Amino acid sequence: MAVGLGPLPTLHPVAGFELGIASAGIKRPGRKDIVVMRCAEGSTVAGVFTLNAFCAAPVILAKQRVQGAVRYLLTNTGNANAGTGEPGLVAAARTCARLAELAGVDANAVLPYSTGVIGEPLPVEKIEGALQAALDDLSVDNWAAAAAGIMTTDTLPKGASRQFQHDGVTVTVTGISKGAGMIRPNMATMLGYIATDAKVSRDVLQNLLLDGANKSFNRITIDGDTSTNDCCMLIATGQAKLPEISETSGPLFAALKQAVFEVCMEVAQAIVRDGEGATKFVTVEVNGGGTHQECLDVGYTVAHSPLIKTALFASDPNWGRILAAVGRAGVVDLDVSKIDVFLGEVCIASRGARAATYTEEQGAAVMAREEIIIRIELGRGACRETIWTTDLSHEYVKINAEYRT
Amino acid sequence: MAVGLGPLPTLHPVAGFELGIASAGIKRPGRKDIVVMRCAEGSTVAGVFTLNAFCAAPVILAKQRVQGAVRYLLTNTGNANAGTGEPGLVAAARTCARLAELAGVDANAVLPYSTGVIGEPLPVEKIEGALQAALDDLSVDNWAAAAAGIMTTDTLPKGASRQFQHDGVTVTVTGISKGAGMIRPNMATMLGYIATDAKVSRDVLQNLLLDGANKSFNRITIDGDTSTNDCCMLIATGQAKLPEISETSGPLFAALKQAVFEVCMEVAQAIVRDGEGATKFVTVEVNGGGTHQECLDVGYTVAHSPLIKTALFASDPNWGRILAAVGRAGVVDLDVSKIDVFLGEVCIASRGARAATYTEEQGAAVMAREEIIIRIELGRGACRETIWTTDLSHEYVKINAEYRT
Repeated sequence: MAVGLGPLPTLHPVAGFELGIASAGIKRPGRKDIVVMRCAEGSTVAGVFTLNAFCAAPVILAKQRVQGAVRYLLTNTGNANAGTGEPGLVAAARTCARLAELAGVDANAVLPYSTGVIGEPLPVEKIEGALQAALDDLSVDNWAAAAAGIMTTDTLPKGASRQFQHDGVTVTVTGISKGAGMIRPNMATMLGYIATDAKVSRDVLQNLLLDGANKSFNRITIDGDTSTNDCCMLIATGQAKLPEISETSGPLFAALKQAVFEVCMEVAQAIVRDGEGATKFVTVEVNGGGTHQECLDVGYTVAHSPLIKTALFASDPNWGRILAAVGRAGVVDLDVSKIDVFLGEVCIASRGARAATYTEEQGAAVMAREEIIIRIELGRGACRETIWTTDLSHEYVKINAEYRT
Repeated sequence: MAVGLGPLPTLHPVAGFELGIASAGIKRPGRKDIVVMRCAEGSTVAGVFTLNAFCAAPVILAKQRVQGAVRYLLTNTGNANAGTGEPGLVAAARTCARLAELAGVDANAVLPYSTGVIGEPLPVEKIEGALQAALDDLSVDNWAAAAAGIMTTDTLPKGASRQFQHDGVTVTVTGISKGAGMIRPNMATMLGYIATDAKVSRDVLQNLLLDGANKSFNRITIDGDTSTNDCCMLIATGQAKLPEISETSGPLFAALKQAVFEVCMEVAQAIVRDGEGATKFVTVEVNGGGTHQECLDVGYTVAHSPLIKTALFASDPNWGRILAAVGRAGVVDLDVSKIDVFLGEVCIASRGARAATYTEEQGAAVMAREEIIIRIELGRGACRETIWTTDLSHEYVKINAEYRT
């Protein structure tokens, strides 16, 4: 049911970054559920992680270890290893230690990532049994297979790739992501991996990732449920024959930033397009806010309203529900007589009431589209924020009522 | 699909408070959609109203007029007269003026209430045409008919009644409510009317209503969508042969407060039991909070999580989703190792991880029930809060996707 999401685009290989896929049979025998990624020696790695206080064991370990030298990322689907307490940490550390042993690196150089059911013990032996096969499979050309290997309730793999030239050298940024439910990332998404062959120091890389994630992964929501396992990683292998890039590198830094930003945005929006049960891709623009926070408050209130989401599903221009959501968003001293609301190009509410020019036919025409923009003009200031979300369909209920069966 | 909600209990008449029902054909010909209530001269009236900034025209008028002498409450269903701007205010005032004219009272003594679709013009002539019939129908014995007359997507009428004796005099408190969707009252519920024949000054009455609503109407949520039209009214006709009741009236005040509180709670919980598509009645208890606000933040995050609500619908003890919701509720410095979570009497998570004693069978047995208690022990302090909510079913999506068709 993915909205406007086709087959994977070409995912350019990134020199110094290899991916290997294997099957551990965690949830179903034969399913590709293990992805190992190898970063060339000297790579720098940045990460952003969920702010959920119940963050999963692998998130705790990955957060610690990303501070040191990173060589391998080990991802499993089918089990989130969250809500598993101390035994969960031991289990995550064991799988990393086994991979380190097989690969001949320090155990702390392996970072774990898990996604799947919360609260069940990680099947350590199954994962360990699949590691050699994943190592044997390592290749720079495996991005598409890895994008498929990290899927859970996703219906399509998600990836994006950009290249730019500098001094005759081609620089590549490629990324993949997964996630379709429990999506309201807070500092990161369910799982995202982006790699570049540029040479970038860890601090600069971390800032690049924070900036990129903040306007992409951190602005999407499907059901408002921030996951326990959100992680997004940015790896720079430094294999492109260019000097190290920093904020003072002028056009080179700007080009890299732009490429990272575009890849973040494309794979983040792909998660929304493939949202559980999604039939619409919805952009909520809030302009004219006094602060960024009040724009976000209004945007998320609209994006999370079950009444608006069901109206979107029904293609029903029930715009009163949008007004009601704006009104309850908690904006202090909100003057409704200054508010305009647009559905696509159609003004539905002007100065806080039904626009004189509005007809039900105009609203219905916009709502019939697969991609819909809801624009709210608060008339309070110059701040603006944009959020991307989906509708709420029968299929969403079905998927989540039957998730574990 | 109402959960544990049977036929209306006996609703004792309240001396000095009459109700009349009529049909204006607002949405469908012949449907009872007008309720007029008459308060005897000398009655005091208190009200709490939605905090939604887009509050409806009738709410604006009722809020102003409740400060003066109140004689009539005029309710229509089928049209919320919200998002209608200045013309909406004029329309509401016109219907009140017509009722005042027919009844021979001051126009400001009539308070309007509307519920239904947002953003459509109020059909003033239709309403005006039904007012005489409603006045002709006025009777103290009409509570049950009025409870049915204010329904919209409700499947059952909602009411409660209490009586107590003082110095050989019987005091009555009777109330009705409506609402099944767009329910997360903020200072009031969709619509609630409670009357007593006790004699109570306006200030004391307002405090009684605030206290009662705060622990009942303001603690229920179905979909998190605070309505534009929430109102709850408490009327004291003073017809019982007892002195005026105030906070210093000792046991008499305590008995009245208890009766008002119980009626508030019963009709508020009835709204949840009849929640759109509800198959479960869910109590979320949050104990051991450092502040009341953090208990509410945790409780509402759990109560609004689409993932928890769909798991409740599926009777799936997917308790990891509860942990994830607690973890993202925004409680500062939350120490997950102090948190216990119970499903009914079953400890599912202890010190932040799956309880050693927990089995899936225990969880499944609790989830199979129609009435479920989720208890979260934060281990941070002595504050506690309780919230009541429902599950999220296919029926909810169906009802709200098809509301206007």
